[in-house]
Amino acid sequence: MKTFREKVEAKWKEKKFLCVGLDPDIEKLPLVLKSKPTKETILEFNKAIIDATHDLVCAFKPNIAFYESYEADGWEVLQQTVSYIHEKAPDMPVILDAKRGDIGNTNDSYTKAYFETLKFDAVTLHPYMGKDSLESFFKYKDKGCFILVRTSNPGAGEFQDLKVNDKPLYEIVAEHISKEWNLNKNCGVVVGATYPEELAVIRKIIGDMPILIPGIGSQGGDIEKTVKAGKDSKGQGMIIHTSRAVLYASSGDDFADAARAEAERLHKEILEAL
Amino acid sequence: MKTFREKVEAKWKEKKFLCVGLDPDIEKLPLVLKSKPTKETILEFNKAIIDATHDLVCAFKPNIAFYESYEADGWEVLQQTVSYIHEKAPDMPVILDAKRGDIGNTNDSYTKAYFETLKFDAVTLHPYMGKDSLESFFKYKDKGCFILVRTSNPGAGEFQDLKVNDKPLYEIVAEHISKEWNLNKNCGVVVGATYPEELAVIRKIIGDMPILIPGIGSQGGDIEKTVKAGKDSKGQGMIIHTSRAVLYASSGDDFADAARAEAERLHKEILEAL
Repeated sequence: MKTFREKVEAKWKEKKFLCVGLDPDIEKLPLVLKSKPTKETILEFNKAIIDATHDLVCAFKPNIAFYESYEADGWEVLQQTVSYIHEKAPDMPVILDAKRGDIGNTNDSYTKAYFETLKFDAVTLHPYMGKDSLESFFKYKDKGCFILVRTSNPGAGEFQDLKVNDKPLYEIVAEHISKEWNLNKNCGVVVGATYPEELAVIRKIIGDMPILIPGIGSQGGDIEKTVKAGKDSKGQGMIIHTSRAVLYASSGDDFADAARAEAERLHKEILEAL
Repeated sequence: MKTFREKVEAKWKEKKFLCVGLDPDIEKLPLVLKSKPTKETILEFNKAIIDATHDLVCAFKPNIAFYESYEADGWEVLQQTVSYIHEKAPDMPVILDAKRGDIGNTNDSYTKAYFETLKFDAVTLHPYMGKDSLESFFKYKDKGCFILVRTSNPGAGEFQDLKVNDKPLYEIVAEHISKEWNLNKNCGVVVGATYPEELAVIRKIIGDMPILIPGIGSQGGDIEKTVKAGKDSKGQGMIIHTSRAVLYASSGDDFADAARAEAERLHKEILEAL
């Protein structure tokens, strides 16, 4: 079994840096799919997007919130979606965007669900509770742990920019992750494409750790600035995430072709910026 | 329909301050229950604990991690557990311990699931991404939003104690919540019983906002210190949470009676400290 890091490194070698979010919102899905029950509709949509884009991306990233809104059905679809990716594109890293973080024994339930049962390769995590709160995740050496450092939302700076000894909190979080949390070499960070200057600072702090970068497309992040600020010394290290721009590129019967076209456009734009 | 705040105020008037966590771990459940499939076993356990303790508590609080570890089955049990509480003890506040926090449109999926479908009265949230990341929750005026301020884990201070202009971060988070986030009067904070000095400081900052206080019992928090530091000017405002100490008070056939006895002991200890 390859580790998350090995899987994503292999994709970077193929010059793939795009990550497509699998965040199905039933109200936005193309009409052509909507005749079936929700559960089947969502799975069919996910499969069509995976089929259309898997050769262009370095990872898929379902955000669990979209599945939780369909309760038990959502869990089944999430499980079937991960299985489908592993079947269709073996060695494709699948990141669960869950933004979790709880005390020790509670996190054990999350790791059991996400890493062991659902077989995700990586997960996103909140840093506020500190290192000891996330040890349950870190101990899975073959998985990836992406910790929120500088998020893509407009108000991200409310706490993340607060100065501690003249240094913004997000830099301190990045330093702790890089120096103290990454003992198993399985940590990464999340930094929004909407903050390229901060992205460049964080890249300097963390060396060649992977950065998951949401916020291009509908959130307004610029690809050229993102790539310039986010690449590591080997010109890689980035997982550049998009969701709505690809998923809902068309609401017609041609939604899968339109998703591929948009993913291809973004893929090329990233390569040009490199 | 009563709001979360009205429901919990009514319990405080009855001098109830204990909150029992419904965090079923199949491996710790009493043998007498284990003959059935997991789903039924957990629901039966939850019902027995609810029956045994509902007249002693001001709230129940399932932590969603324990349910996610049973995937789709877990979601069904979570839904059935909330319904059972609302049926058995109408107007009992039910808090979902989920520690969520994502960007706007994603949080809408969480609120739909937790507040609208599952009908929870309140939820716990991570502050790191800032106010705008949690607006989806705050806009539900009749619900409760408990934001992590000072958590109960041993390493909580790693970021929470960092000084910003000579003031620890957790105080600044409490100030923002109190002055800027609580516009709909539906916010509360989470402060661990393991840090009574910090609890006292936070109580001064937030006035009569509710505090959810985990960490008594197996995590080592002291009830007398907690009550002295945590009560508001009316001698209330606290939701003192315990889970394992009550749930697993006995592993024998008498588990429900033992859970009640332990809940009664804690309830009395809280009243004595008041």
